[in-house]
Amino acid sequence: MRFWFTCNGCGKNKTFDLIETKCECGGTLGVEYDLDMVAHTFTKESLKERVPSMWRYKELLPVEHMENVISLGEGWTPLVRLEEAEKEYPVKKLWVKREEQNPTGSFKSRGSSAAVSVANEYGVKKVAVNSNGNAASALAAYAGYAGMEAYAFVPKDCPGLIVEECMLHGAHTFLVDGLIQDAGKLIQDGKKEQGWHNVGTLKEPGRAEGKKTMGLELAEQFDWNLPDVIIYPTGGGSGVIGMWNAFLQLKELGFIEGDLPKIVSVQEDGCQPIVTSIETESPFSAQTYGVVSNPTGMRVPSPPDGELITSILRDSNGTAVAVTKEEIKDAQSYFGKYGVSSSPEGSATMAGFKRLVEEGWLSEDDEVVLFNTSHAMKYLPYEVSNVPTVKNYQDWIATQHVF
Amino acid sequence: MRFWFTCNGCGKNKTFDLIETKCECGGTLGVEYDLDMVAHTFTKESLKERVPSMWRYKELLPVEHMENVISLGEGWTPLVRLEEAEKEYPVKKLWVKREEQNPTGSFKSRGSSAAVSVANEYGVKKVAVNSNGNAASALAAYAGYAGMEAYAFVPKDCPGLIVEECMLHGAHTFLVDGLIQDAGKLIQDGKKEQGWHNVGTLKEPGRAEGKKTMGLELAEQFDWNLPDVIIYPTGGGSGVIGMWNAFLQLKELGFIEGDLPKIVSVQEDGCQPIVTSIETESPFSAQTYGVVSNPTGMRVPSPPDGELITSILRDSNGTAVAVTKEEIKDAQSYFGKYGVSSSPEGSATMAGFKRLVEEGWLSEDDEVVLFNTSHAMKYLPYEVSNVPTVKNYQDWIATQHVF
Repeated sequence: MRFWFTCNGCGKNKTFDLIETKCECGGTLGVEYDLDMVAHTFTKESLKERVPSMWRYKELLPVEHMENVISLGEGWTPLVRLEEAEKEYPVKKLWVKREEQNPTGSFKSRGSSAAVSVANEYGVKKVAVNSNGNAASALAAYAGYAGMEAYAFVPKDCPGLIVEECMLHGAHTFLVDGLIQDAGKLIQDGKKEQGWHNVGTLKEPGRAEGKKTMGLELAEQFDWNLPDVIIYPTGGGSGVIGMWNAFLQLKELGFIEGDLPKIVSVQEDGCQPIVTSIETESPFSAQTYGVVSNPTGMRVPSPPDGELITSILRDSNGTAVAVTKEEIKDAQSYFGKYGVSSSPEGSATMAGFKRLVEEGWLSEDDEVVLFNTSHAMKYLPYEVSNVPTVKNYQDWIATQHVF
Repeated sequence: MRFWFTCNGCGKNKTFDLIETKCECGGTLGVEYDLDMVAHTFTKESLKERVPSMWRYKELLPVEHMENVISLGEGWTPLVRLEEAEKEYPVKKLWVKREEQNPTGSFKSRGSSAAVSVANEYGVKKVAVNSNGNAASALAAYAGYAGMEAYAFVPKDCPGLIVEECMLHGAHTFLVDGLIQDAGKLIQDGKKEQGWHNVGTLKEPGRAEGKKTMGLELAEQFDWNLPDVIIYPTGGGSGVIGMWNAFLQLKELGFIEGDLPKIVSVQEDGCQPIVTSIETESPFSAQTYGVVSNPTGMRVPSPPDGELITSILRDSNGTAVAVTKEEIKDAQSYFGKYGVSSSPEGSATMAGFKRLVEEGWLSEDDEVVLFNTSHAMKYLPYEVSNVPTVKNYQDWIATQHVF
């Protein structure tokens, strides 16, 4: 086999399957690849002839037969240098990775393309996701293209335009009176009865692998010489985990060498469990109270893989920083002025960058990449109507009996 | 010189310059290239090593020095096959070119990248544009990145989210009480006094050339075997003109051979001067009354180059079709269901496609490409506040004297 599971906790191997990626020991199951087998066809030279999407890295994605791939043109997004900003801040080079140019206007297209492709390979016809927004609209689009039925559960304060996007793509869309994990519980409670395949963060093996392509792509775009620092907005953290895995795989394949980039997680003040763990040099623990940040992808008080994320930040000599709503707003204008439409999450990376410059954490020799994960526009205030709000699975069932 | 102007009317050559592209004879000045010179470096093989943006076609763009290029990662957008739709409609293959994945969420990024690059080469610092929306927000972004000051004039019923986008990118943004040509007159009236470089449709040589890259790209993505039919939403028509020029140039360069695709223009009922000319087999004339269509990029009653557009449609054995608001709405849902977020203009191509199938104009052997020019989201109802509305240049001047 080209790929299988290995537990990040106990190290045990397991056959790949369409399952929740948790080992009996409590560790997360990651996808491992037979890199000797991969190396036969996956070469720097061969990449020059490949499709301009993340499926150029097909050998490192867990789909057996390429005809099962569900692609809407995700990935291979631009990397744009911000030379004007370089004049204002003492770093060597500053880049923005424009993930908002994906098919669903956010980096979540990657995870959904991979997850829906894997699901497609296993014959799934009905998918569900809990999400702060962009993962839901992405799932809706890919499921629609694949001919699957999609159920999207988002917190009731989810940006209205993203809710509209879910509906545009034909998903059964519901607002949940609670946070992302409450929406997740609803799905878990109804999963068996409804026959839902759960595409929530780390509930299946595709999404994290799809995110991994951001790391592969960054390496290729930098001609296999990675930048010094990557600043990434962190919620569930599958982007951090995925990119790190990508770098380790590329290192083992001999595509890259030397130190890996320092990874910096940015969160918003008011929901910052990763930052708290890094700042206090303590083991990771979920934030169980006082969640007062805005409804963005960074608002994940209890990321299922918090310990793994913080260990990656530490291993990479990176850090984590929490920025305020005001810093995010300023950074959005700053990005905007230079032609980049950035979501609050993407803007947070610019805010984090400014903070790290002020604190002297970044040096004049650093080449830095900011991840702009989505468009500014998606987050403008917009009222949705006729979208049912539910509290839990029982509540949801009641909405279904109306018909 | 690698490039110069040739008049589409009298055929006279003229040195390339940053001027309004009208000849004394009344014809439009097109950019011509020394294709022998171009052929030295522009080869199918060389393209494999190029940047994944429209600047991969640099030899066929009117910028002398590459350091003047202003690029935010435009072009090289995905071409996605709609296999599910193919089952429902009797054509051989159906594709959608996803232009909404450009840096400013629309195909207008291409024209703005080229226009601002050319302007940059000539040292321009202040640009202005009249637009139905997307060209304005695109100019705002590219001017911002280039460090130029931008003035955007859009009809007062311009979609609010696009107006917000203009402001996000730092443009001085004004609503005009009138149609796109009234906004254009305002700029022409103030041009000299304000020192504005006018980036309106066909007021400078860059935009049409930037649009041309859609044709170059389509040819490359189809491995130099063009599809049978291209369905394109038409307002000012620089996309049609640009793509056609691209095909002629590729033919002369020996990259493609045989019949060129049939070009179909789609307009909305209520503003359809191109359609009227084609349907009545008459010379082109502007629509001077009864403009009642929606505020989209297709609402251009008096395209400066209408005669050229209709002659291209005729030369290509194409046609033109006007679709209703309801057909556009249905097509948007249809696209949405298959994972494509399409603007009214992009949706209109799907509506036009359905109509041409019904009418028997398309055959079972046809490979058809639809151009989705922008996102659905940009057109959702959104109220802007604090944006001044003006009627004409005198009116605008008054708003400036307030300070």
